[in-house]
Amino acid sequence: MEEWTFYITGTSLSETELLAKVRDFDVIVDEPAEIGGTDKGPNPVEYLLVALAGCLNVTIRGIANEKGIIIHSLEFAVEGRLNPEKFQGISKEGRAGFTEVKVSVYLKSDAPKEKLEELIKEVEERCPVTDNLKNSTPVTITLKE
Amino acid sequence: MEEWTFYITGTSLSETELLAKVRDFDVIVDEPAEIGGTDKGPNPVEYLLVALAGCLNVTIRGIANEKGIIIHSLEFAVEGRLNPEKFQGISKEGRAGFTEVKVSVYLKSDAPKEKLEELIKEVEERCPVTDNLKNSTPVTITLKE
Repeated sequence: MEEWTFYITGTSLSETELLAKVRDFDVIVDEPAEIGGTDKGPNPVEYLLVALAGCLNVTIRGIANEKGIIIHSLEFAVEGRLNPEKFQGISKEGRAGFTEVKVSVYLKSDAPKEKLEELIKEVEERCPVTDNLKNSTPVTITLKE
Repeated sequence: MEEWTFYITGTSLSETELLAKVRDFDVIVDEPAEIGGTDKGPNPVEYLLVALAGCLNVTIRGIANEKGIIIHSLEFAVEGRLNPEKFQGISKEGRAGFTEVKVSVYLKSDAPKEKLEELIKEVEERCPVTDNLKNSTPVTITLKE
């Protein structure tokens, strides 16, 4: 079994800003002013939604090719909702992250509706980021000096 | 109960490239050449790791402030491993996404080790992206025309 490893590093620049290095790419994470940040980039949970849309793009396109479905255009709208009280320390109840993520897929194709619904069903099983949201994944956080 | 909604959109530019819009920010997602992409930006699962590091930064800094812990510097190394066979359609077994995510937190502080371990424990509960990885979140994908 071949296994792929992905790796990033990050340097904290402030209370809210992080400079991440991904291979040769620099990525800035920040928070908008309303959440106490300096608004230099998307925030962490927005990047999570971007990751999902990016992964759905690759997976939809790949499976469409397998099935001989021609896609004319493909767009996404992704929305996530969370209650910030656990993150803020106001409450110990409920969850910290998104309780729900909704994706609208605007897909133009001449393929029949049933074929497209089948495609999306298979995408739900095979998209890595969808899997990481829908299912539980162990996260190990180790403190180093 | 106050609830926060986060929202992004994305346009598929190719088999692997997505242009995401996050408020006023443009974010490019792509795949490296080894995964059939044009390497114009980090890939979806790398953005997932960036989201996690960015979220840990905000949460660690915030809880450190609450606890009166002064942080001199803070860096992250984040690694995720996955078996690509389900994504590729080679196998129907196992999962598509990361089976494990490991975070090393390089934290410089004069606070005693026990206080820092306590901090990380609380961060694990209160960090939104950690929560979305560790726990199951419903994802609804709706096909629109």
